[in-house]
Amino acid sequence: MADLSPTDRTRLTREKERGRRDRSELMALLDEAIIAHIGVIADQHPVVVPVAFAVDPDGPDEGGTIYVHGSVGAGWMRRAPGTDVCITVTALDGLVLARSAFNHSMNYRCAVVIGRARRVEDAEERARAMSLTVDHVVPGRAATLRPNTPKELAATQMLAVPLHEASLKMRTGGVNDEPEDVAAGTWAGVLPLRLVAGAVETDAETSEPVPDGVRRRAAALGGSSGQ
Amino acid sequence: MADLSPTDRTRLTREKERGRRDRSELMALLDEAIIAHIGVIADQHPVVVPVAFAVDPDGPDEGGTIYVHGSVGAGWMRRAPGTDVCITVTALDGLVLARSAFNHSMNYRCAVVIGRARRVEDAEERARAMSLTVDHVVPGRAATLRPNTPKELAATQMLAVPLHEASLKMRTGGVNDEPEDVAAGTWAGVLPLRLVAGAVETDAETSEPVPDGVRRRAAALGGSSGQ
Repeated sequence: MADLSPTDRTRLTREKERGRRDRSELMALLDEAIIAHIGVIADQHPVVVPVAFAVDPDGPDEGGTIYVHGSVGAGWMRRAPGTDVCITVTALDGLVLARSAFNHSMNYRCAVVIGRARRVEDAEERARAMSLTVDHVVPGRAATLRPNTPKELAATQMLAVPLHEASLKMRTGGVNDEPEDVAAGTWAGVLPLRLVAGAVETDAETSEPVPDGVRRRAAALGGSSGQ
Repeated sequence: MADLSPTDRTRLTREKERGRRDRSELMALLDEAIIAHIGVIADQHPVVVPVAFAVDPDGPDEGGTIYVHGSVGAGWMRRAPGTDVCITVTALDGLVLARSAFNHSMNYRCAVVIGRARRVEDAEERARAMSLTVDHVVPGRAATLRPNTPKELAATQMLAVPLHEASLKMRTGGVNDEPEDVAAGTWAGVLPLRLVAGAVETDAETSEPVPDGVRRRAAALGGSSGQ
């Protein structure tokens, strides 16, 4: 897997020591995170919305493909194809509570992908991208569902963006305070954060047990299989 | 508090039934969420980055002010002042695991604020915005810290954006499946998600006990006060 090679658009301008070049770390974050935020240019202003997404490391675009899913009727989805978009995926890992306001920070991992958005026209690629999107939420779930109807496929738009032009930035570890603030004795520390699942809430009209894939996903996110 | 009045830029184009007009619900989400994603237009492409933020309901801008904090050296921070930016705050509340790929969804709350970014020049407003940013992370913490030095204030840039032009969209509840998919007996349900704190990790060079404000914040996020 090729390293992340910064371009003028993805080169970090600040805190360069937080940049990572290892593409496998980028892929790990994209695998773990559940939503992305996509930025699209509207009339003279940007629009940023949260989206479901999926990654195909062997997709048809350079560096692999990230797919973003939306309705054909959404404003941003109408504007995006053929334009450069920015897809940002962030995991918030903790609050860094330093001894001064200035040194307060957060622990996080953040991937930024910039690239030309392509509307997925091919029916096979669109169906595959939809399955990847479901499997991104619960691995293996797509294969347990009926195939999409032609009407469903027509109502869903998939954007494909190359994973080629991407950066990964992260902060980890503890506080980073001035010696005089440490000497002053103020308390400092880190409050770790993570996204955690609760108990699975099975739909009242279902008599089936919670599928293994859902149980595993809930357990991986710290949740239980519920009733 | 005035209702949210959609403009051409914040009117929902899809799933309008998910839109909320109650400004107090917007403020509640901004209070709860820890990070925002800001979108800024760079050279012909958008850039989206995660940021710390704070809200001043009585700030000098129409509808109150949302402050976004960053380094004077960051590329997006240099570009933003005087341009229209988009600040998006999302809480992911659950995975909606339907009986078809198409009806899969997520429960979420999402605020989108679009407005002209103003660089905060006034030293008093900047100091206040920094305190609000610290207090947004841990309520009451700013008052327990030493004042910012002139050098720290000079190195921090604060952007102010009016909270006037904003939308709030949310999805709550269970799956919404087709009758024939329910009849087919496939399992469906919701996996609730929330951001949870772990145990406080006190810095090794601190002999002070965990401050009450940090304890309360950890407890509110489901964490413990650690060692």
